[in-house]
Amino acid sequence: MDKVTVVKIGGNVIDSAEALPAFMAEFAKLEGKKILVHGGGKIATRFAKQMEVETVMIEGRRVTDMAMLDIVTMTYAGLINKNVVATLQSHGCNAIGLSGADGNSIKATKRPANPIDFGFVGDIDSANVNAEFLLTLLNAGVTPVFSAIMHNGEGVLLNCNADTVASSVALGMSRVAATDLVFCFEKKGVLTNIDDENSVISVITPENYAAYKADGSIHSGMIPKIDGALKAVAQGVQSVTIKHSEDLLNPESGTTIKI
Amino acid sequence: MDKVTVVKIGGNVIDSAEALPAFMAEFAKLEGKKILVHGGGKIATRFAKQMEVETVMIEGRRVTDMAMLDIVTMTYAGLINKNVVATLQSHGCNAIGLSGADGNSIKATKRPANPIDFGFVGDIDSANVNAEFLLTLLNAGVTPVFSAIMHNGEGVLLNCNADTVASSVALGMSRVAATDLVFCFEKKGVLTNIDDENSVISVITPENYAAYKADGSIHSGMIPKIDGALKAVAQGVQSVTIKHSEDLLNPESGTTIKI
Repeated sequence: MDKVTVVKIGGNVIDSAEALPAFMAEFAKLEGKKILVHGGGKIATRFAKQMEVETVMIEGRRVTDMAMLDIVTMTYAGLINKNVVATLQSHGCNAIGLSGADGNSIKATKRPANPIDFGFVGDIDSANVNAEFLLTLLNAGVTPVFSAIMHNGEGVLLNCNADTVASSVALGMSRVAATDLVFCFEKKGVLTNIDDENSVISVITPENYAAYKADGSIHSGMIPKIDGALKAVAQGVQSVTIKHSEDLLNPESGTTIKI
Repeated sequence: MDKVTVVKIGGNVIDSAEALPAFMAEFAKLEGKKILVHGGGKIATRFAKQMEVETVMIEGRRVTDMAMLDIVTMTYAGLINKNVVATLQSHGCNAIGLSGADGNSIKATKRPANPIDFGFVGDIDSANVNAEFLLTLLNAGVTPVFSAIMHNGEGVLLNCNADTVASSVALGMSRVAATDLVFCFEKKGVLTNIDDENSVISVITPENYAAYKADGSIHSGMIPKIDGALKAVAQGVQSVTIKHSEDLLNPESGTTIKI
């Protein structure tokens, strides 16, 4: 069976003039078949301000009216995606930038307007990830690079959450390949002490997770992330790893969630 | 040998809320392997104005400094390209949006700063069109849709002329497939009388071209276009057709340039 690594790179790294080029040089070196998913929220907020479009966030999610949809499409699928692809090409990684509309690679569904109307925001069922097409690209030696702009199949673009895109791509790919999912961000992993970068938990399983939650080592914002990761591994992803963007190539680094 | 049609759609059609959807419904119906190339200049000019970036044109070409490069990348490779792809998907055409960086499909060279410094503007040698990769996509049932944003292979995006992209793609594809090139715009073809849409010249060959130039039927701005088309057919493109965007599916329409 094929082996694929799906890597998500967060908005803080995308925004950093130092961390981003360093990450991309490392990602280009990552061996085997791979897929990159990128965020980019802060750059869209800056452009929205310049274009006098108000940014409204509810529960951490961007409300996306038509004007904001244009801005995120331009920023994520245009500016960021094409610059990431061109940079990866310069490192010898044959990348191809994709939105969900491209090759009908990921179809999303517009989120219902009740209870909160987020506008042109989409949710993804991993059954609607076109794993066969992505495998065709991977087999042609090409590395897909996704922004979080999807489509509904009826001509409408939808703004999605990049973490969800990464999980959905990994779940979709796990139907056709042994798939690992890696979230790169600016921390060394799941820390038992937020102030101590050396307090990384190496492995989380359903068994020790309960104990970490009970003693308070894992709490608040980390819980939905780890719940999501455990759900992904339960559904067929081999492993989910959370690590620092600088540590991509170090197999000993970060927190790995597995069954 | 495979057969491929490369279609260029001009900026005036891209800008029209009526002509664009009509064109895309027709393009989706076009039979056989096909590639679309789109412009989009006016939308970039509008966004540049909103973002207070000055638009400077020299000899009809956009001077592209770093701020303008970001704007054209956002507009052409993001906003326009992804909306065109999503619309084609809604018509059952499995489109994939590409810049030259994507899949390293087209490499360009930054235009020398002498005699005029156009900034991040590129020129294309059709030898640098990755026809094999495009054929892989076409054989997978996917229709490439190009914006005119290319890359230099060293991480730099370059703004190119969409007509030149279309000619270069057609020339590149003619190495691996029998390729026809169609330019769609808002006129019915090459007219002997600019005020009479019924004065279309059906066929131009090197033989009758000289006569049309001598009697003044073909003059001024049309001459470089037809020179370019004749050069393309001399180098291996089967035919170049210039027609109205509404006439894409009508084989009797427009002006066809062939040897």
